[in-house]
Amino acid sequence: MTYCVAIKLNAGLVFLSDSRTNAGLDQISTFRKMIIYEKQNDRFMVLLSAGNLSISQSVREILQVEQLKDAGGGPPITIWNAKSMFDAARVLGSAIRRVHERDAEDLKASGVDFNVSLVLGGQIKGEGMRLFQVYSAGNFIEATSETPYFQVGESKYGKPVLDRVITPETPLDEAAKCALVSMDSTLKSNLSVGLPLDMVVYEVDTFQSNKVVCIDHENPYFRMLHDNWGKKLREVFDSIEDPMWTGGATQVPLLTPLTRNQPLRKITSPEEKLI
Amino acid sequence: MTYCVAIKLNAGLVFLSDSRTNAGLDQISTFRKMIIYEKQNDRFMVLLSAGNLSISQSVREILQVEQLKDAGGGPPITIWNAKSMFDAARVLGSAIRRVHERDAEDLKASGVDFNVSLVLGGQIKGEGMRLFQVYSAGNFIEATSETPYFQVGESKYGKPVLDRVITPETPLDEAAKCALVSMDSTLKSNLSVGLPLDMVVYEVDTFQSNKVVCIDHENPYFRMLHDNWGKKLREVFDSIEDPMWTGGATQVPLLTPLTRNQPLRKITSPEEKLI
Repeated sequence: MTYCVAIKLNAGLVFLSDSRTNAGLDQISTFRKMIIYEKQNDRFMVLLSAGNLSISQSVREILQVEQLKDAGGGPPITIWNAKSMFDAARVLGSAIRRVHERDAEDLKASGVDFNVSLVLGGQIKGEGMRLFQVYSAGNFIEATSETPYFQVGESKYGKPVLDRVITPETPLDEAAKCALVSMDSTLKSNLSVGLPLDMVVYEVDTFQSNKVVCIDHENPYFRMLHDNWGKKLREVFDSIEDPMWTGGATQVPLLTPLTRNQPLRKITSPEEKLI
Repeated sequence: MTYCVAIKLNAGLVFLSDSRTNAGLDQISTFRKMIIYEKQNDRFMVLLSAGNLSISQSVREILQVEQLKDAGGGPPITIWNAKSMFDAARVLGSAIRRVHERDAEDLKASGVDFNVSLVLGGQIKGEGMRLFQVYSAGNFIEATSETPYFQVGESKYGKPVLDRVITPETPLDEAAKCALVSMDSTLKSNLSVGLPLDMVVYEVDTFQSNKVVCIDHENPYFRMLHDNWGKKLREVFDSIEDPMWTGGATQVPLLTPLTRNQPLRKITSPEEKLI
């Protein structure tokens, strides 16, 4: 598996990916899941990929040369001349369909699903930043202010902290920190996600970024974040009152009369009926 | 779906379950996933269930009367006379197999998997506490001091906090708090898990428990925990330094020279080759 997350904020975009690929448990390798496309002063895009590696690698290769017919009779549309991120996402969808035509039937014959999951985000001069999640069928959805992030791969472990922190107003560096905490929780609980990480932070309307970093287990910032998050989470946990069952003084009793649902009745003999 | 967690500590056992059952998104109901079996001064057991509700309800009903032949020629073994939790888990496995014989073929013909996942924990006089996870095939595994908890259902959202906090030495009330935090994270990120919750805390060698509570959205303790965890998590998050890309003074730089992995090279033109 894999874990990738991309966040769209008013201030810019944050992309983070791990680099573990596994086929079973005894075949683990490092493959980077992020690609950065930059044409300075014109466009900046980042692609994140999860799913079958043979498919995602083919899609990435083909995407470089994929062309869509322009309905208006202009030159064919590529990711390098698309006038909108929407068109760039269409080109990506088309690249996926090309790999599907080539491989899907034979994969199916081998019992392998055509499974790929991509996130494409960035900005093309003339419009605002946009972020898309692109599915195996080449269709896609776009992030909005209500849902400003997309995850692909092992997304569940790291979702609660994103849900708690991220809004469109979140500053860029804070969102980068949140993405790293989300990744840290995932690394802790799932073997199929591993270091090094790739992270890119893009500031709105700059059409380039030098905030590109590869984070391994020796990275001072990530180590500090990992240690502090674990330690302080524990402190917060300890600071919350334990549940008090009976007696003692508490403002927040655990046992209170309920109107609708009652505590479970115990079954105390074989003859007793289930409720 | 469902989320249930059971934790085995030196001091006792903690069981927590939600009560949402859904078939698709527009058919949501409340079904409690926990059953408590108590024969005072002799045995105390709790069963948690996830998976297909028709299967788990049948298993629970049959478990009450299920009998295993005793290899030593004694009376048939039931959950009410079993001399060990291991035998009780075998009776549960047998009940699952009985439902499998009755239903599995017809379920398969309707395209439905025979899917049920159970946790059985407790203590029978004469031995220590034990905790088992029982699978659809009736086979089971037992919790150990290295892996002192089992989850069934939507387990991923709530796993990181368990991994951070729970050891066999954790006090009972602290473990109950941890189970509730784990549930709170799951409730926040997954629609298929819902209130009310059922929680039972069992103290070692008591063979009964009065710490049985049903927690709904008005429960003062759970509300306090939910609010405080969210607020303080946010404070911890804010207290951790944001990543600093360049300049400024920091003890924990994000950008450092790497030996093995280099930051991703950008692709800057259509002709450029992928790495």
